[in-house]
Amino acid sequence: MIRLSVLYPSTEGAKFDHDYYRNTHVPLCVKTWGLDGAEIDKGVDGPYVAAVHFKFASPEALQGAMAAEGTGAIMADVPNYTTIQPVLQTSEIVD
Amino acid sequence: MIRLSVLYPSTEGAKFDHDYYRNTHVPLCVKTWGLDGAEIDKGVDGPYVAAVHFKFASPEALQGAMAAEGTGAIMADVPNYTTIQPVLQTSEIVD
Repeated sequence: MIRLSVLYPSTEGAKFDHDYYRNTHVPLCVKTWGLDGAEIDKGVDGPYVAAVHFKFASPEALQGAMAAEGTGAIMADVPNYTTIQPVLQTSEIVD
Repeated sequence: MIRLSVLYPSTEGAKFDHDYYRNTHVPLCVKTWGLDGAEIDKGVDGPYVAAVHFKFASPEALQGAMAAEGTGAIMADVPNYTTIQPVLQTSEIVD
């Protein structure tokens, strides 16, 4: 199982609309990529103001999602909730 | 629900023993803190070579774990698997 974590670093003067992220953007990702769901984080302490964790069955499934037709619309939606450039982390879930 | 993510930045020349982390260190955390489990990541792409995600029922449960008697032994075990200084992120799981 592969985890894609998208981490938004706290950035002075930047905006992040947690409600839009939760109610509109992440559901769009889940629908576009045909996932069961995603876990959304609202930062309490640490370097990130928000994050989302998606799980994919394999590296190929992740690659397929990134190349999917709807992924362009997902990217185009980002300015609707934030000005922060996210950090992307791909990992194998070992346990 | 509160997530504590412990993220290990890729660091040139640093060691990280994934087997020890998975088989010894994280199980010690889970046992000490009385958790159901934890999710362990092995980095594939991105800034982190490894990570773990623990879930706590509340901020108070996390605080209690950090202050628990066994947490000193957990900290003392870190040099057994890595020389990397981890990044800690605490978040509220909103979805």
